[in-house]
Amino acid sequence: MAVGQCDFPTMLDIAGIQLGTCCAGIKQTVKDDLLLVQMHEQAVCAAVFTQNAFCAAPVHVAKANLSHKPRWLLVNSGNANAGTGEQGMQDALTSCAAVAATVGGLANQVLPFSTGVIGQPLPVQKIQAALPNAAKNLSESNWQQAAKAIMTTDTFPKGVSNVITIAGQSITINGISKGAGMIQPNMATMLAFMATDAKISQPLLQQILAKAVEQSFNLVTVDGDTSTNDACVLMASGCSLAPEITADSEYYAVFADAVLVACKQLAELIIRDGEGATKLMRIVVEQAATQSEAAQVGKTIAHSPLVKTAFFASDPNWGRILAAVGRAGVQNMVLEDVQIYLDDVCIVKNGGRAESYTEEAGQRVMDQEEITIRVSLGRGDAVQEVLTCDFSYDYVKINAEYRT
Amino acid sequence: MAVGQCDFPTMLDIAGIQLGTCCAGIKQTVKDDLLLVQMHEQAVCAAVFTQNAFCAAPVHVAKANLSHKPRWLLVNSGNANAGTGEQGMQDALTSCAAVAATVGGLANQVLPFSTGVIGQPLPVQKIQAALPNAAKNLSESNWQQAAKAIMTTDTFPKGVSNVITIAGQSITINGISKGAGMIQPNMATMLAFMATDAKISQPLLQQILAKAVEQSFNLVTVDGDTSTNDACVLMASGCSLAPEITADSEYYAVFADAVLVACKQLAELIIRDGEGATKLMRIVVEQAATQSEAAQVGKTIAHSPLVKTAFFASDPNWGRILAAVGRAGVQNMVLEDVQIYLDDVCIVKNGGRAESYTEEAGQRVMDQEEITIRVSLGRGDAVQEVLTCDFSYDYVKINAEYRT
Repeated sequence: MAVGQCDFPTMLDIAGIQLGTCCAGIKQTVKDDLLLVQMHEQAVCAAVFTQNAFCAAPVHVAKANLSHKPRWLLVNSGNANAGTGEQGMQDALTSCAAVAATVGGLANQVLPFSTGVIGQPLPVQKIQAALPNAAKNLSESNWQQAAKAIMTTDTFPKGVSNVITIAGQSITINGISKGAGMIQPNMATMLAFMATDAKISQPLLQQILAKAVEQSFNLVTVDGDTSTNDACVLMASGCSLAPEITADSEYYAVFADAVLVACKQLAELIIRDGEGATKLMRIVVEQAATQSEAAQVGKTIAHSPLVKTAFFASDPNWGRILAAVGRAGVQNMVLEDVQIYLDDVCIVKNGGRAESYTEEAGQRVMDQEEITIRVSLGRGDAVQEVLTCDFSYDYVKINAEYRT
Repeated sequence: MAVGQCDFPTMLDIAGIQLGTCCAGIKQTVKDDLLLVQMHEQAVCAAVFTQNAFCAAPVHVAKANLSHKPRWLLVNSGNANAGTGEQGMQDALTSCAAVAATVGGLANQVLPFSTGVIGQPLPVQKIQAALPNAAKNLSESNWQQAAKAIMTTDTFPKGVSNVITIAGQSITINGISKGAGMIQPNMATMLAFMATDAKISQPLLQQILAKAVEQSFNLVTVDGDTSTNDACVLMASGCSLAPEITADSEYYAVFADAVLVACKQLAELIIRDGEGATKLMRIVVEQAATQSEAAQVGKTIAHSPLVKTAFFASDPNWGRILAAVGRAGVQNMVLEDVQIYLDDVCIVKNGGRAESYTEEAGQRVMDQEEITIRVSLGRGDAVQEVLTCDFSYDYVKINAEYRT
């Protein structure tokens, strides 16, 4: 039940990045649940991970292996391999070794990722048995299959594919992501795998990715629950004919911006598929003293169950928005300086309901599927946008029935 | 739909504290919605208020008047007089003046309180017209009527009445409270009005109340939304024959403890009446390095929509609890040291599912209406308990339909 049109786009191939999927039987359905990604040997890879203190076993392994010039990603859905203790670490390492044995590489060049139920042993033998099938299917054209294989409670596969031109040569940036619940990414979201054919050094790629994630995945939230397994990976195969992106090249900003755009698109798709979501809310906090203050206010609104249920009901209940701003922990905020808009309708001004406001005008905006909540703090000129979705009966239904 | 038995108790009178209610027509029903409380002229009064930066007009006035030896409380339900700008301040002051005119006192000796819809003008004329009726009904025996008059989305009136004996003389402590949603008290909860006949100075009473609130109302949460109108008042009439409570008296601790007990009882009643609640969860965080760390972990669990929906479904989904502990922001937490229990059933140990754990044992606890989640961090010996309730379809229903 996605908010808006979320058709899977036509994905261009990324030279040097191959993807192979298969069904290992980890999920209870017969859908694909295993994804193997193979990078060209000259490719570099950047990644950011969850800041949940109890990160899952595969996150520990992937973090460690990131420094070993990784060439493979192994992703399974249906099981998070989190809260699985020492056995979980063994299972993650065994999976990496299985990849190495299958494709002929080193186990520490494999980054493992898992998503699904927490606290169940990872069925490693199923993964070992299925891996040759995934390897057999490796192809540069399998982005849609890959996007489907990593889904859990997602209702649609999520992908973006953009092209920029640098010095007359094209660079393609692709990405797929998954996630619908336990979404308040902190440092990275759920799972997002991105690839480009750009030529770039690993440290620079890592820097660009970290910055882009901060401004995209880290500013969306479904339920305020930061997962144990979040990760976002950006691979760069170097196969494009465009000149190398360097820190002082004139193309640095163009490329970094393209990565940010792709991250924002993927993050927005996750919110559009938020568990039970019927509405997409863009919370723009402006005139803040600092960007972090703006984000803090935006997230407080985005996490308020009262705000989220009011939007589900299409109720222009601005008192709940005002109360959330007030409890956001910003020091010395002046109520009289705060203005709140629903799209272009001003609802709060001078500490109370705007004189020009009418319930009809508010209702007209609330009846939309996508709404911008604009909060102006009157304290400075920092701006931040936070994306979230509403809280519906279906959110409760999905989470009362699904065992993460 | 309260969790457990919540019958209104037999309330003893508090000599020197009179209560009068009436229907002013502020609510859309014909129920009482106005409460006037009159204190003996020698009484003292302590109060704590919401820390929401945008506190409501009556909160501003009550804070200011607290230093003027208040003798009257005026409480209305059905309208919060919050987000009402300059007019709201005028309306609060006009209400106080109306009390003064009716009972013959000073306007600045009145503490006003409002609860209900945010952002609507307070119908002051209705209050002015009804006040004589409330004054006419003033009596020491009206605690139950008072508890009913302050209700909004509450499904039952909330009261406690306890007696302690000091030097052979009794001291009674009564309290009533209201609140079911927008509940994450910070400094005080929704509305709680307490009274005792103890003899005690105002500064000492204030100190005892502030401490008790910190350990009771401030450790419960329904939805993480701190209201604009929270307040907790403790009146002491001084009419008891027991000796005065002083800072160095041997009875100080007994009295302070009795206040804490009453606060805890009132806070628990609010959670039992949490909007849509079907379960009461006591989250005990122990072996923490500090009390604030313990409270931080407890509140993160208590605010997690995923934990709350799992409890609604009676699903022993400990992975969600573990993930919440992990994202609570505690530095250098060691997963292997963390243990999690549902009542006496150990579910997490050594970083994963406890070997002794069975789904049957977990399910047995989850099927109960009241459940203790015990989280042991292995970092020290601080303990804190946080109370919360589950998240049900009815929470969404109530908040999608009710205009706060």
